[in-house]
Amino acid sequence: MVKHINTTCLNLLCDLKLSSKWWGWGDASKSYDLEARPRFFKFLQEKLEITGEIIQEPVSLDSVKVSRTRVEDAFARRLVNIFSEDNVRLDDKERFLHSLGKGYLDLIRAWKGNPSNVPDVVAYPTVESQVEQLLSESRNWSFVVVPYGGATSVVGGVESRTHDARPVVCLDFKRMNRVLDVDGRSFLARVQPGCLGPELEKALNAAGLTLGHFPQSFEYSSVGGWVATRSAGYESTRYGKIEEMVESLRMVTPTGVIETPLVPASATGPSLLQVLVGSEGTIGVITSVTLKLRKAPQSRSYVGVLFKTFTDGVEAIREMMQKEIVPNVVRLSDPNETRASLALASRNGGSLVEKAGTWYLTRRGYFGSEGAVMILAFEGSPEWVDFERKRALATCRSFGGFSAGSGPGRTWYKERFYLPYLRDNLLGMGVLADTLETATTWSRLLSLHSKIMEAFTAAFQELHVPGYAMAHVSHEYQTGASLYFTFMAKQLPGREENEWHIIKNRVTDVIVSAGASLSHHHGIGVEHAKWMEQYYGPLGIRVLRAIKHELDPTTIMNPDKLLPSS
Amino acid sequence: MVKHINTTCLNLLCDLKLSSKWWGWGDASKSYDLEARPRFFKFLQEKLEITGEIIQEPVSLDSVKVSRTRVEDAFARRLVNIFSEDNVRLDDKERFLHSLGKGYLDLIRAWKGNPSNVPDVVAYPTVESQVEQLLSESRNWSFVVVPYGGATSVVGGVESRTHDARPVVCLDFKRMNRVLDVDGRSFLARVQPGCLGPELEKALNAAGLTLGHFPQSFEYSSVGGWVATRSAGYESTRYGKIEEMVESLRMVTPTGVIETPLVPASATGPSLLQVLVGSEGTIGVITSVTLKLRKAPQSRSYVGVLFKTFTDGVEAIREMMQKEIVPNVVRLSDPNETRASLALASRNGGSLVEKAGTWYLTRRGYFGSEGAVMILAFEGSPEWVDFERKRALATCRSFGGFSAGSGPGRTWYKERFYLPYLRDNLLGMGVLADTLETATTWSRLLSLHSKIMEAFTAAFQELHVPGYAMAHVSHEYQTGASLYFTFMAKQLPGREENEWHIIKNRVTDVIVSAGASLSHHHGIGVEHAKWMEQYYGPLGIRVLRAIKHELDPTTIMNPDKLLPSS
Repeated sequence: MVKHINTTCLNLLCDLKLSSKWWGWGDASKSYDLEARPRFFKFLQEKLEITGEIIQEPVSLDSVKVSRTRVEDAFARRLVNIFSEDNVRLDDKERFLHSLGKGYLDLIRAWKGNPSNVPDVVAYPTVESQVEQLLSESRNWSFVVVPYGGATSVVGGVESRTHDARPVVCLDFKRMNRVLDVDGRSFLARVQPGCLGPELEKALNAAGLTLGHFPQSFEYSSVGGWVATRSAGYESTRYGKIEEMVESLRMVTPTGVIETPLVPASATGPSLLQVLVGSEGTIGVITSVTLKLRKAPQSRSYVGVLFKTFTDGVEAIREMMQKEIVPNVVRLSDPNETRASLALASRNGGSLVEKAGTWYLTRRGYFGSEGAVMILAFEGSPEWVDFERKRALATCRSFGGFSAGSGPGRTWYKERFYLPYLRDNLLGMGVLADTLETATTWSRLLSLHSKIMEAFTAAFQELHVPGYAMAHVSHEYQTGASLYFTFMAKQLPGREENEWHIIKNRVTDVIVSAGASLSHHHGIGVEHAKWMEQYYGPLGIRVLRAIKHELDPTTIMNPDKLLPSS
Repeated sequence: MVKHINTTCLNLLCDLKLSSKWWGWGDASKSYDLEARPRFFKFLQEKLEITGEIIQEPVSLDSVKVSRTRVEDAFARRLVNIFSEDNVRLDDKERFLHSLGKGYLDLIRAWKGNPSNVPDVVAYPTVESQVEQLLSESRNWSFVVVPYGGATSVVGGVESRTHDARPVVCLDFKRMNRVLDVDGRSFLARVQPGCLGPELEKALNAAGLTLGHFPQSFEYSSVGGWVATRSAGYESTRYGKIEEMVESLRMVTPTGVIETPLVPASATGPSLLQVLVGSEGTIGVITSVTLKLRKAPQSRSYVGVLFKTFTDGVEAIREMMQKEIVPNVVRLSDPNETRASLALASRNGGSLVEKAGTWYLTRRGYFGSEGAVMILAFEGSPEWVDFERKRALATCRSFGGFSAGSGPGRTWYKERFYLPYLRDNLLGMGVLADTLETATTWSRLLSLHSKIMEAFTAAFQELHVPGYAMAHVSHEYQTGASLYFTFMAKQLPGREENEWHIIKNRVTDVIVSAGASLSHHHGIGVEHAKWMEQYYGPLGIRVLRAIKHELDPTTIMNPDKLLPSS
């Protein structure tokens, strides 16, 4: 039977006044209720050849040993001098906890109590001038800096890396988390980098506004992190990615402060803003961001649509985008994800009515092995929602789409921030579970999907492990869309990291060789850096290195992120 | 009485097989029919204290003397070897004609036959490899390169500048002007840089598509020029500026070729694409561009709306944008431009019906000294046009907007590419006429408009010349909009360039000090370069210089453009 993961280790966190789960996703008091999903549980047992028993637990936080800090007393005193006593932490737990993001490799290290790339000291800036002071100290002291926001990176973005004896100062922006100013006339908000999604939306909603940026990490990720990594939220089809929401930003670099002009658009040479956005802390630290806002929606509508084939669904989306119909969300599961979703959605095998509906639709060809489920969401004024919904559904119908009502969409909406908790259950059962994503043009999308699915299968075979991969199309454009893959495999005990790297490498090689986005959502961090030269070309990389060299000549900013070490 | 400009000088162009007007705007066979606009003519006489007589004409092309080319025979032979005999031109006329853009200063030099910054040789590449060969020759020969597209720059973008003895090679892309590929599934077209607007739209329209980029220079400007300068078309409110339409580009730099990934979006560090877009030929030469397309509209609707005050109109636009109503065009004239437009629109004092309508509206307060006219355009599917038009007009009504039917919009549409011809008539009458533009947030827009109008007035006073300035709001965003100014002043004979510089400097100082866009439409070129450091900050400029240094270490690319000479 399925058991919940032992939570004794959570008690330790009370001491640290942490409510987040250091060894897994999200709120320490929450976990995924897999017992309520018996069909999905059976599905996993079959596909991954697992017993379903809990076979492992994270170590206790107290048992974790980290190496001694390399911060010398004199430098520690200087840091206290800059940030104040309360805002400088040298203790092991604090340092260890700041070494962890939310990637699969982070979780493996956390569960095993096997620390890696731990910062030597954690500082909490409360004002920008402290960051300026610290970076200017690189003339007098030897150190490197790793900016730290919500620490939800899944690509190693918060690892405290260094190649030499220089201690790592982790700059945690938790205490620079305010919404500084909301300009309701210009729909602009100036925000500090440590502000998390819910705090931001609360402040904006109070003024009848929204940013419209909802990555799956929304509850725990920070504005600074979004902007530093070019993150995508689930409503990006309507509102764009974060780089399209940034009107201006301020960055403290080792060479000085840059602030880009606060203008709606300009024709003034290379975009300085788009050089700073996405720089992942490698050239400087974002200290404030001015974001473009939208009216908070008055009305919401969700609808699920069934397609006989994935191709039909993809064609329907392409047609919607090219007709400039813009739902907030369009998410089309491929047949594998459709099967998994149906198993997951069914809490108890389904009511009689559900069973009758399924029987009818199966007869009409909708639940065949090629069947694909689409979720559509519309948010805005009631008249706009009505207009776009009608246009979207008419387009879906012209590709054989069958409207399944608001149920699937509502379920998706309710659980959109809940699914990441499932990974922790799976890990307990000895299952590797992770996601990866890309984007490409419509012409290349279906063939890329096939090639990536083949690469997963080949990787599982190479490893001799049972595995399952599935995908959805989301974040759509007139010219193409994102493909988001979830993959699971039975863990290879003792070889967990290597197993993950083999799958990741095989699939990413296929993505980059096909000319698709190396990442559409998650950024580069450490994990994608080795493909950057292939992706941007050698001369492109020289441009990025030249920018870094100009702003960070002594390479104190976030080593090993974004660009491979030269 | 108004006379047309003597066209004898045009005959010379027949020899050169040129149909464009070297001393003015556009097609040599066209000119603005000012005789048909007696009210506007009277308006000009009053405001600018001019007689209206033609007092000057451009010199004959034959009389223009340019300095000897600095290209030595051996280098000329090498160029012929690269480009072929037919594609290398060293004759004086060709060189002189390639020294001229379409800015006011260009026209002054053309009319006076006073050449400045003339290239030493003009080469017409036909394939990318010729450009690569030329740039790689910088190891063996000493020269600089100026890329040349449609030559409609109004900021000195095509001036052949050099600070030393190095000859200037002007690369004219007229013969690399093909649409290479249209991907109708992905709504993408790969285009050579020399392709002009009409050729591009013809190829796209044949596939039921459009780019949707229509700068006022559309008929004569090139894709490469648009992308190099971040140009804005009159439908940018709906479709975005050119930088939002570029999916990928290829650039030949002195250090090698860069091609950005062809993906709809990515989260992969600083945007290499947005470093290359807008670089104005200072780091390399664009050799192909992949552009995002739209469905060609099936339906069009234009409507004029009268507002009692400019402020009412601005508020109506802001509300439309923030409700996410997206007309293709929203163009609101300020009171000065409204008066000028009414004078210009009236071909013969107006019909009785027009006069009655004007009387009625004047009584209701619509043609007061604060009155402002708005043009709205909607293009797309009939259902979409109908939906957006209704929403837009309802918003206008809520700010007192009075719909004046389709007449004003149709007139604007018909004459949208015609107005630039008027400048040539004005020049003949001894009138300086030019435009400049910026963009700012809604919160700052009205006060910026006032400050700029004051700066014009002060500049006219400083010069002791009668002048007239007017503006419209266009190219709108949720966060702000562009302000586009037209200004006219009686010319100061013998001091024409100085007069223009004084006006330009006074106004641009106000724009940059207010934190508004140094340019929203036209780019930087030579004319705006001196404000770049104030605009981007010293560290921002260091970033741009670092990029240039990496790709163009011997500074052969387009001297003096974009960044002030260091």
